[in-house]
Amino acid sequence: MNKLLIVGTVAFDAIETPFGKTDKILGGAATYIGLSSSFFNVDAAIVSVVGEDFPETYLDLLIDKGINIEGIEVVKGGKTFFWSGKYHNDLNSRDTLITELNVLADFNPVVPEAYKTSDIVLLGNLHPLVQAGVLDQMTQKPKLIVLDTMNFWMDCALPELMSVIARVDVITINDEEARQLSGEYSLVKAAEKIHAMGPKYVVIKKGEHGALLFHNKEVFFAPALPLEEVFDPTGAGDTFAGGFAGYIAQSENVSFDNMKNAVIYGSNLASFCVEKFGTERMEQLEKKEVYARLQQFKALTQFEIELEH
Amino acid sequence: MNKLLIVGTVAFDAIETPFGKTDKILGGAATYIGLSSSFFNVDAAIVSVVGEDFPETYLDLLIDKGINIEGIEVVKGGKTFFWSGKYHNDLNSRDTLITELNVLADFNPVVPEAYKTSDIVLLGNLHPLVQAGVLDQMTQKPKLIVLDTMNFWMDCALPELMSVIARVDVITINDEEARQLSGEYSLVKAAEKIHAMGPKYVVIKKGEHGALLFHNKEVFFAPALPLEEVFDPTGAGDTFAGGFAGYIAQSENVSFDNMKNAVIYGSNLASFCVEKFGTERMEQLEKKEVYARLQQFKALTQFEIELEH
Repeated sequence: MNKLLIVGTVAFDAIETPFGKTDKILGGAATYIGLSSSFFNVDAAIVSVVGEDFPETYLDLLIDKGINIEGIEVVKGGKTFFWSGKYHNDLNSRDTLITELNVLADFNPVVPEAYKTSDIVLLGNLHPLVQAGVLDQMTQKPKLIVLDTMNFWMDCALPELMSVIARVDVITINDEEARQLSGEYSLVKAAEKIHAMGPKYVVIKKGEHGALLFHNKEVFFAPALPLEEVFDPTGAGDTFAGGFAGYIAQSENVSFDNMKNAVIYGSNLASFCVEKFGTERMEQLEKKEVYARLQQFKALTQFEIELEH
Repeated sequence: MNKLLIVGTVAFDAIETPFGKTDKILGGAATYIGLSSSFFNVDAAIVSVVGEDFPETYLDLLIDKGINIEGIEVVKGGKTFFWSGKYHNDLNSRDTLITELNVLADFNPVVPEAYKTSDIVLLGNLHPLVQAGVLDQMTQKPKLIVLDTMNFWMDCALPELMSVIARVDVITINDEEARQLSGEYSLVKAAEKIHAMGPKYVVIKKGEHGALLFHNKEVFFAPALPLEEVFDPTGAGDTFAGGFAGYIAQSENVSFDNMKNAVIYGSNLASFCVEKFGTERMEQLEKKEVYARLQQFKALTQFEIELEH
């Protein structure tokens, strides 16, 4: 079984959408990535940090999903990273209400010995120096390194971000971030410029409008599944990345053709994530639901045209 | 050869985009629809009206493309409909600068005798009473009636619009218009409500984000081709509708599965339309380019996942 190493936040979120609001619930990029990747036959481990206030039940949940949590440091007397946000009516934008870094401020990631030879590494959204710190600990070159990041790091740690971007095979970012990073409005041109920064594969996430996978002059598109209701977009991008990396780890195939399948699976899993608040839907999700939705993705996109010249 | 009847404007446009501006050039919904449908093996005719100021060369262009113009009335001493608009930097929105209805104000469509038994009717964007007036002249029930419309008619002629919507098989509108018409934000719910107004098929155009085809509980998605540069979006929606109707007319097949192909062709042709100002690209476009781009659409969307249970 291939090893998948995940680094990212494990955190508390408090979320408000037009459909309601939550108290502090389980959140964090690595949480969503881990839950998503657990639908595949992989040996996944999370490297992260939480405070002493972090409930044992949340850690048990990850263990139940088969995720190794040896690399999640619990800081005695420390408080867990907390994020609170409120989504606007169209759910396409949000305001951050509270960000308390807490134990994340001094996070020094330690990769468990057994995962220093991981086949796939997914660097979830975190300070680029932390992401680089994880790569530095690998004792064997991974088959694939995937980086997820966001505009925050472009604004306040661009040189460090550029340095880690140069070391990865795949970058996943959203459309606005791709435009900011590249200075190009056209996503085709943006992807070209980001290629030139290092990553051989560029995945641009467009939320409800799907995701584009670029590799040299090739491009593949995975739509988002049209849904009756989007409840809470929190974690959708991380879930996408987790499905992408999980599928690749399971299939042990880093070809472009297989990455097409991976973005379809990423989109598939993300379509569940948004159906309930926080991680709720992902916790309950069953494999047969994912397979059924895969048929919906096929029906949504596959066509047969015979050329008549 | 199947007959395709097109009603819509044949007009002058003056366009400004971030890439430049034009003088009065050839425009109008029926013009774009006609040019787009001419890539298929169909017997197409346009019903429209122009003024005496409309250049003979523009009419010759339509004739050269094999389009019957018997139904384009030339009003002696009249002036042709003129629209002028300016696109914003992202090309996703525009301001209308000038609208001179001119001869369109008193337009009374007359369907040529030979096209009163057309197989496919495409009602391009126009006053819904004019669209209804064309349907009233059909002496034989068409195999498929396609309606394209816009928010302007929702604002100022809603009862008339609802009445013509109830008479058509397919409606094509953009996402914002679908939301306005249905009062639903979710496009899935919007499509359901619009189904209930009459059309068995609902096509929601999302511009650079592709198009959705709904039929009962089924849905199909045609992406827009990711382009390096979009020069001028004018006419893209009409070109989409023309490709859709042209392909269906050629293939003589109004099944849902064949409509999937039709939206792919619509998206294909629209991707050319935006590459140059006005109708320029569509005038020069060759069939082999359309076929080559069809391969790009396949590469963009087709995937092979084997299920592992």
